[in-house]
Amino acid sequence: MLVVPLIERKRDGGALTAEEWSALIAEYTAGRIPDYQLSALLMAVVLRGLERHEVNALTQAMLASGARLSFDGWAVPRVDKHSTGGVGDKVSLVLAPLVACCGVAVPMMSGRGLGHTGGTLDKLEAIPGFRTDLTLADAKSQLQRLQCVLIGQTPEIAPADKRLYALRDVTGTVEAIPLISASIMSKKLAEGLNGLVLDVKRGSGAFMPELEDALELAQTMIALGSDHGCPTVALLTAMDRPLGRACGNALETEEAILALRGEGPPDLMEVTYALGVEMLLLAGVERSRAEARRRLENALAAGLAAEKFERIIEAQGGNPKVVEDPAVMPQAGAVEVFEAPATGVVRRIEPRRVGRAIVAMGGGRTKVEDTVDPAVGFVITAKPGNRVSQGEPIASVFAADAKGIAIGMEALKEAVEIGDEPGTAPLPLVSHRVTKAGIETL
Amino acid sequence: MLVVPLIERKRDGGALTAEEWSALIAEYTAGRIPDYQLSALLMAVVLRGLERHEVNALTQAMLASGARLSFDGWAVPRVDKHSTGGVGDKVSLVLAPLVACCGVAVPMMSGRGLGHTGGTLDKLEAIPGFRTDLTLADAKSQLQRLQCVLIGQTPEIAPADKRLYALRDVTGTVEAIPLISASIMSKKLAEGLNGLVLDVKRGSGAFMPELEDALELAQTMIALGSDHGCPTVALLTAMDRPLGRACGNALETEEAILALRGEGPPDLMEVTYALGVEMLLLAGVERSRAEARRRLENALAAGLAAEKFERIIEAQGGNPKVVEDPAVMPQAGAVEVFEAPATGVVRRIEPRRVGRAIVAMGGGRTKVEDTVDPAVGFVITAKPGNRVSQGEPIASVFAADAKGIAIGMEALKEAVEIGDEPGTAPLPLVSHRVTKAGIETL
Repeated sequence: MLVVPLIERKRDGGALTAEEWSALIAEYTAGRIPDYQLSALLMAVVLRGLERHEVNALTQAMLASGARLSFDGWAVPRVDKHSTGGVGDKVSLVLAPLVACCGVAVPMMSGRGLGHTGGTLDKLEAIPGFRTDLTLADAKSQLQRLQCVLIGQTPEIAPADKRLYALRDVTGTVEAIPLISASIMSKKLAEGLNGLVLDVKRGSGAFMPELEDALELAQTMIALGSDHGCPTVALLTAMDRPLGRACGNALETEEAILALRGEGPPDLMEVTYALGVEMLLLAGVERSRAEARRRLENALAAGLAAEKFERIIEAQGGNPKVVEDPAVMPQAGAVEVFEAPATGVVRRIEPRRVGRAIVAMGGGRTKVEDTVDPAVGFVITAKPGNRVSQGEPIASVFAADAKGIAIGMEALKEAVEIGDEPGTAPLPLVSHRVTKAGIETL
Repeated sequence: MLVVPLIERKRDGGALTAEEWSALIAEYTAGRIPDYQLSALLMAVVLRGLERHEVNALTQAMLASGARLSFDGWAVPRVDKHSTGGVGDKVSLVLAPLVACCGVAVPMMSGRGLGHTGGTLDKLEAIPGFRTDLTLADAKSQLQRLQCVLIGQTPEIAPADKRLYALRDVTGTVEAIPLISASIMSKKLAEGLNGLVLDVKRGSGAFMPELEDALELAQTMIALGSDHGCPTVALLTAMDRPLGRACGNALETEEAILALRGEGPPDLMEVTYALGVEMLLLAGVERSRAEARRRLENALAAGLAAEKFERIIEAQGGNPKVVEDPAVMPQAGAVEVFEAPATGVVRRIEPRRVGRAIVAMGGGRTKVEDTVDPAVGFVITAKPGNRVSQGEPIASVFAADAKGIAIGMEALKEAVEIGDEPGTAPLPLVSHRVTKAGIETL
C-alpha cells in the first residue's frame, strides 16, 4: 500500500478513513510497513490529533489484530477497572476480589510499572509463585470458576498494540490522548466486557496532570467504549500525593491485603469503594449507589474478599499464606525510619519524586526489560495537611542495602515539604464522574 | 546518545542546540540512530519548524558530513545558480556556459528530475556520452581550466543530506522550508562559492506555489548563505506556465543550444539574463546592472557561450557536435502536432499537467531509480494571452510510440485552456529580488 500519501494527509491535518487505518495496522503488524514510516505518521498524529472516527478505527484495527474473549451463554456480567496509573495505587488488588464477591466477574488484564508509576503485575508477582502469564483459555476458565482472574496482556490480545507501543516508546510519540485511549481500549475491549470503569488520575504524579487533559482522556475512552458496545464510566481521582501509605511492590501488596482484612487506610478504601460502586451499577447487580456501597462493605467485613483473593492466588500458583502472613513476600535488607525534619504542617508529598526513588532503588523500571526488586519502597504515614513535630517518625524506607536507604532518605527529604502554613489544598480524592452523558463534579 | 528527549523537545515546540544537531546528524550518518527515530523527529520539525539557529546548525552538520571544495590562491570568483525547479526550466544549460565566459567560474552541481519537474542532469545526459559523475578532483580541475563544470552531487558532498533526503522522501517529510533550505544549502556551500543566485519559482507549477512560501524559502536560504560567508541573492520567477517552448530532456537541451546560438525564446532569455546579471554582480566582475547585462549579451552574440558549452561537453565525454546539430541526441519515435481545439485566447497552460505527462510518457521519474527516455516531451509554441484560431498548430508531442502520443495529446487538451476572454494575468516573469537587506518588487 502507498503509505506516504496517508502520512502527508495526516501531516496536513486531514483524516484517514476506517479502511485506511485498518489496512495500515494490518500491514504494519505483518511487517510490510517499515517502522520509519509509522513513526512519522505517529508524530503527525501526536501533533495533528485524530478525529473521533479515526480513534475508533484505530482501536478497532488493533482489537481486530488479536483474539477476543467471548462468553456466549454465561450469564454473569463482566466488568473491569483500568487506572491510568500513579504512585501507591494498589486499588486493583483490593477491588478485583471484592467486586468478584458481589455477583460480577472481573477479567482484569493489567500492565507492569514503567517510569515513576507502579504496575499491578509487579505487585502481584511480589507474592511467591504468583503467575500472571496464564493462557487466554486458562484465564477464561478461572474467571468462570472464581469470577476473577488477574493477568497480563497475553500475546493473543491486540498484538498490533504491543508493536505500536514499543515503537511509540522510542520515538517520543507516547503522550497523545487518542493514541493512549486507543491502546488502552483495544486491550480492554478484547476482554469481552459488559462494562468498564476508568480511574483517571490527575495531579502532579499522574500521567496527565492537568484536569482538562484528564477529562479529555476520560471522554475519549468513554466514547470508544460506547461505540464498541461496552458502557464505560470514569472517575477522576487525586494523584497529587501517593494513594494509601505503602509505595513499592511487596509493601503495596501487603497494604492491599490489610485493606481486604478491613484495615486499609481511609483514602485507599474511599477510592476502592467509589470505583466498586460504579462497577456494580454498570454490571446491573445493584441499582442504588447506597445499596452497592453497602454490598461492597459487607463483603469486605465478612471476610469474603480476603478469602476470594486467597483462592485467586492459589489458582494462579501463588502462596496463599500471604493473606494471613504478608511476611512470606520478599523482605527488604535494610529499613530506616524517616523523621520529620521540622515541626509544622505537611504541605505536600510529591508522588513523582517518590516513584522515581523506587525506580532508583531497584523497585521499578526505566526500560520494559528491567527486572524489579519487589521488597523496596516506602511506607509514608503522614498525609498533606497533617501537623508533625520535628523528630517524629513519618515514614520508613525499605531498601536492599545502605546505598538504597540513602537514595530513599534523600528522596523523602525532597518529596515531603513541611512548613508553617498548609500548602495548596490537596485535590479532592474523587472529584469528577464522567459518563457518555457528560461530566459531573462530585 | 539519548534521542527520545530531543524528539520530545522538538515535538513540544522547543529548539535543539547546535551541539545536539551536530551530534544527531553525525550519529545518524554513522548508522547509530535508527531511521524510525529520525523520521519521528523530522515530522516534528515539519510541524513545529526550526529556529534560525537550528537551520544553521543542521546545515552546518550536513555540510560537515562531507568534503568541501577549496580554491586557495585561485583568484577567479566562483558563483553558482540554483533553481527550485519547474517545467521547461533549462536555464542552467544556457546560463552556466554564458557566465563562465564573463570572468566568473561556475561549479554547478545539479540534480535529477523528480515528480513533475525536470532536472539539469537528465537534460545534460540527453547528449550522447555526457558524464555528470565526475570525481570531485576532476570537477575542480575542469573548473579551473574551463571556468565551468556541470556535475551531480558526488558521494563526497554532504552524505548526511543524501541519507536524510532518502528518508524524508519515504516519510512525508519533504515539504518543510527549513529542511529544504538546509538540504540545498549544505550542498551549495560545499562548492566553495563566493556567491550564489537562487531562482525561486512560484505559481501553480512550482514546488512552493504561493508567494509567501517562495519568499520564506528565499529568505531562509539567503540567511544560511550569509551566515556561512556566501552572499546569496534570490529572484522570484514565474512558474504558472512552462518556461520557453520545449518541455522534456532532449527537447530542452536543444532549446538551450538554440538559446546559446542567439535563437532562444524571449522568456527563457529574460530569466537567463536576469540571473546572469546577479551572478556577475555577486562575483564583483561588474558593478552596474546595465554593464553586466551588456557583457552577457555580447558574450552570447559573439558565440562565446555556445563555444564554451561545446568545450564543456567535450571535456565531460559528450558529443560536442550536438551544438551544431542537436539531432545527434535521441529522437522521438513518433511526433504529432496539437491543433488549437477552438478559436480564442489561450487562458492558461498548466505546467504541472505538462510535467506529469512527460513522466507518464517515460521522460521523468516517480522514483529516484527510474530511468528516463530523453526524447519524449512537448514543444508548446503558444503562450498564455496569445490569440489562436481553431485548427492552428500550437504544440507538438514527441513520444516513443502511439500510446505515448495519446497520453501527450490528452494532457495538452487538459493543460491548454482556450476561452473567449483572457484568463488571470500571467505572473510577471521576474517579480521579486530578495537579498539579505530585504525584498524588492521588480
